[in-house]
Amino acid sequence: MQRLNPVPSDLEIAQAVELKPIIEIAESLGLSAEDLEFYGRYKAKVHLDVVEKFKDHPQGKYIDVTAITPTPLGEGKTTTTVGLTQGLGVLGKKTMCCIRQPSQGPTFGIKGGAAGGGYSQIVPMEDFNLHLTGDIHAITAAHDLIAAALDARMFHESYQDAETLFDRLCPPDKEGQRHFSPAMLRRIKKLGIDKTDPDELTPEERVRFAKLDIDPDSITWNRVIDISDRMLRKIEIGLGPDEKGRTRITGFDISVASELMAILALTTSLEDMRERIGRVVVGTNKNGEAITAEDLGVAGAATVLMKDAIMPNLMQTVEGQPAFVHAGPFANIAHGNSSIVADQIALKLADYVITESGFGADMGTEKFFNIKCRYSGLIPNAVVLVATVRALKMHGGGPKVVAGKPLSFEYAAENLPLLEKGCANLVAHIENIRKFGVPVVVAINQFKDDTPAEIELIRQKAVEADAEDAVLCSHWANGGDGAMQLAEAVVAACEKPVDFKFLYPLEWSIKQKIEKIATEIYGAGSVSYTPEAEAKITLYTTLGFDKLPLCMAKTHLSLTHNPAIKGRPTGYVFPVRDIRASAGAGFLYPLCGEMRTMPGLPSRPVFYDVDLDLATGRVVGLF
Amino acid sequence: MQRLNPVPSDLEIAQAVELKPIIEIAESLGLSAEDLEFYGRYKAKVHLDVVEKFKDHPQGKYIDVTAITPTPLGEGKTTTTVGLTQGLGVLGKKTMCCIRQPSQGPTFGIKGGAAGGGYSQIVPMEDFNLHLTGDIHAITAAHDLIAAALDARMFHESYQDAETLFDRLCPPDKEGQRHFSPAMLRRIKKLGIDKTDPDELTPEERVRFAKLDIDPDSITWNRVIDISDRMLRKIEIGLGPDEKGRTRITGFDISVASELMAILALTTSLEDMRERIGRVVVGTNKNGEAITAEDLGVAGAATVLMKDAIMPNLMQTVEGQPAFVHAGPFANIAHGNSSIVADQIALKLADYVITESGFGADMGTEKFFNIKCRYSGLIPNAVVLVATVRALKMHGGGPKVVAGKPLSFEYAAENLPLLEKGCANLVAHIENIRKFGVPVVVAINQFKDDTPAEIELIRQKAVEADAEDAVLCSHWANGGDGAMQLAEAVVAACEKPVDFKFLYPLEWSIKQKIEKIATEIYGAGSVSYTPEAEAKITLYTTLGFDKLPLCMAKTHLSLTHNPAIKGRPTGYVFPVRDIRASAGAGFLYPLCGEMRTMPGLPSRPVFYDVDLDLATGRVVGLF
Repeated sequence: MQRLNPVPSDLEIAQAVELKPIIEIAESLGLSAEDLEFYGRYKAKVHLDVVEKFKDHPQGKYIDVTAITPTPLGEGKTTTTVGLTQGLGVLGKKTMCCIRQPSQGPTFGIKGGAAGGGYSQIVPMEDFNLHLTGDIHAITAAHDLIAAALDARMFHESYQDAETLFDRLCPPDKEGQRHFSPAMLRRIKKLGIDKTDPDELTPEERVRFAKLDIDPDSITWNRVIDISDRMLRKIEIGLGPDEKGRTRITGFDISVASELMAILALTTSLEDMRERIGRVVVGTNKNGEAITAEDLGVAGAATVLMKDAIMPNLMQTVEGQPAFVHAGPFANIAHGNSSIVADQIALKLADYVITESGFGADMGTEKFFNIKCRYSGLIPNAVVLVATVRALKMHGGGPKVVAGKPLSFEYAAENLPLLEKGCANLVAHIENIRKFGVPVVVAINQFKDDTPAEIELIRQKAVEADAEDAVLCSHWANGGDGAMQLAEAVVAACEKPVDFKFLYPLEWSIKQKIEKIATEIYGAGSVSYTPEAEAKITLYTTLGFDKLPLCMAKTHLSLTHNPAIKGRPTGYVFPVRDIRASAGAGFLYPLCGEMRTMPGLPSRPVFYDVDLDLATGRVVGLF
Repeated sequence: MQRLNPVPSDLEIAQAVELKPIIEIAESLGLSAEDLEFYGRYKAKVHLDVVEKFKDHPQGKYIDVTAITPTPLGEGKTTTTVGLTQGLGVLGKKTMCCIRQPSQGPTFGIKGGAAGGGYSQIVPMEDFNLHLTGDIHAITAAHDLIAAALDARMFHESYQDAETLFDRLCPPDKEGQRHFSPAMLRRIKKLGIDKTDPDELTPEERVRFAKLDIDPDSITWNRVIDISDRMLRKIEIGLGPDEKGRTRITGFDISVASELMAILALTTSLEDMRERIGRVVVGTNKNGEAITAEDLGVAGAATVLMKDAIMPNLMQTVEGQPAFVHAGPFANIAHGNSSIVADQIALKLADYVITESGFGADMGTEKFFNIKCRYSGLIPNAVVLVATVRALKMHGGGPKVVAGKPLSFEYAAENLPLLEKGCANLVAHIENIRKFGVPVVVAINQFKDDTPAEIELIRQKAVEADAEDAVLCSHWANGGDGAMQLAEAVVAACEKPVDFKFLYPLEWSIKQKIEKIATEIYGAGSVSYTPEAEAKITLYTTLGFDKLPLCMAKTHLSLTHNPAIKGRPTGYVFPVRDIRASAGAGFLYPLCGEMRTMPGLPSRPVFYDVDLDLATGRVVGLF
């Protein structure tokens, strides 16, 4: 495509692209129509059995794109992910990228589109940002079905004794025979009752089976909605007259914060997804025992609702490279990486697979290694660390960067001392990644006021810190041509030997794991725990969840727990406020600061601009 | 396909079907791939421009399937709709059917699947019942975005004066210029301000523009979710600390009760849908003036979210006839008919188009004629009225029929006196339909205990009441072969002249319209109004909504407002409790009894049976 200068809006660029039919994209990867489920002309889901079908293909190189500690504006990770994919395409390499699907909530609120930017985007960007193939809707449906099942069960248990409830759960058929459904058999097995005929249960077993006896105060399963709706953060439900006073305080999170989204991102097969959903803990009974989606009898139905969502979505970059867009878990309370299945398939189809992990490297990439790679068994070949002069100056002590406000003059003129000081943050991230034994390439995402001396300073600092290289790139303005040099550096880095190792073994205690991450990655001197956190450590150790990997829920705006602290602080006390479990997804998440799981709409939301051009049928205003 | 006896479960039949690729179904209608958006192999959306492309094709015959006043079990309308389509197929007629998409809520609660039944179903039935192509999810997203916009606007107005808010809504750009977005220009125009430059507004105009001043007590816009979740019927929102005490009582309805679903069903084009969504009234300001989605600036974004939903979904019957599945508005607070656009397209593609209207003929078909046909301009050629011996015996005074409980013996043995008495209900519906000038064919949906004398009695009564014919049909057990005779009768009826007329002109007052429907269709002697209803009549007449058609919200289990009253009652007082407006969809709905807009889950929900067969990947337990 012909590139313009000045660079038009993302939507204008996206709509100017002459899209290839998705079947052509698929065929370029060796796939045929039978491997696909089409969703319109330009999107398709890819069957999971492609991995098996292509099992003799050589494994591609696996590259994670991450960033230094960003400003609130973001430093261009997605743009670099797409740009690098296009850059490798310019070099003639068979490449694809795997990125996250964004939430629709912020799209209409503060953020607008999230498909990359400029001449490095995934298209069609309207589809990317709206509905896509319905995966998030499927997660919302499955999540909220579990929530409704939970509240309905508590309601029905509240006015019926266990015998009546047993009779309703397993009513006699026309021949007087009672039956357990498959979901009930799973619960019976979990209870350690070795029977399959309901009539053989003892009265005591019938009570154990029928009565979940959920403790309302123990419930951790909120409802979700894919809308930025702050008024739903905390609500009281059950106020209707027919609900007979059985009210409860609860709330809604944004759908991408659902544990089911984390499951979608971490699962490796339908069977595995069914098991994980069954293991989801929604609360405890009054004896403190975990109540799962399996106990509610709803895990099968939730899996059925997500059976198509598990297939990754094939799209394309503006330069026609294939791209998987699949799963979009939160990067704080979840692990912030796109799906394992997309990466697994991509690695069989392409020679270079570029994926992206959310937030900065201390968050996204640590979790990419310790959680995602652990569950997938995949070994990364290189990490691309995105840095900008702007962010590094901020880390050097530059004025606050606020979204929507003009930048201070420090960011518009050369300032080598400020930049040099800020490079400490870059060095921290390089050193962190090197601890996992993976080569690092720094991508300096170019902005118009950057000077050659500034770029050279960053390059020096990066190489000194054991990065393979640091390369200036201009893919936002120049597409793949602007990332050719980066692509060359990545190709070279991928030839280096990898000595991949996890930061901690799963056998370690919860505290050992937390302290390892806090001291080695965040630079803390020690860790403090509230009594709530201590209690959870005891509880989860009892429940056997202490052998799960950790997913630290902390700000991405600092290496520490405090978003105001920039640069590379050391020796501080890192506080753990509380710990939660995503037993289905398979991680514990220590809360280190306030985590917002439901955004709000600003006074002037993006939706004011969004409309249909009725003459052309095209979307306008989705920047 | 080979039919079995006894008839297997719906899901077993559906999964035994050898599906045709949807492109073959489309090609049988003269469509090509470029007219379609594929959603997997067996579903496709059809572009709306097909109507224009095929405008020179002759218009097909247009047949509505409805029923007598049903038992709570239903009398088989959808099954007959599909069976008749297949029966016409057996006769070699080019036929398609247009039916509603079901809500996912009841699918997992009480109801199970809703794709027809036995050997008269739409397939794949899993897709039909789960997600389909995401239309309901799109409606949910659009509806809840409007709700979030409404609450966020009230929140942001609560702590900012109008000047500050104006400044945020139209901030100066880098050149100091302010701009109205297209959505803002629509509001400015609605306010009667003939300006396009924000800087030209007077201080008073700026206040009028920026301050919606919504009266919280006036809000009629709930949130929606496609889950049966009774605890959400009535909730208090805004309890979070950041919401600063701005709490409000509201609730969730099931998504198919959304006015946006009624809009999807009644719209005729993208332009029309954009206008209707803009006209949606969410409440009033403190002066009693209507506040619309347009005023909130969110109508364009809501339309964008529904831009694909407007295309009807092409599927197939178990015998390979084409079927549109599109829109599924409630049949009480909305009009209960599938979409106009599906019918419009189908009538250009097929010689016979069978559609279905929800509930009994007093509800669904009255609305089909007076609302749907009025907005579409389409003229129906015949109505098929489904009757069962069972339901007619109930109307004759037979014992109560309760879902999930065995039927009394009266329903299992011949009982001509009971049946004859009950035929009054059949006669009422035939007479009602004849008032619109459309021929009626009665379809007697066969059950195993029906006797020849019972069938003959129904036939006699039907023909005496001016039905064209009454035909026994067994499409549930025998597919299209079981509906051949019905198909022949329908073909004959369609050759009859139609003298189609509406029951009332739009110019009539609200009361005139209500009284016409209540006395002519329901058999009431008079109508009573509560003071609330009287107040609404005054309000809506002032607002100019009195020229809209009416959508009566009443039970379908009786010709009256009282579900316990069976048969054909006359002369009673019909009470109107309240009146609401769906100004965007384009109707008023008088409330005549309690209307539930959010179902609950029973003690033993259907989801207990639903799971994936992990060996085959197939859904099980969705009956």
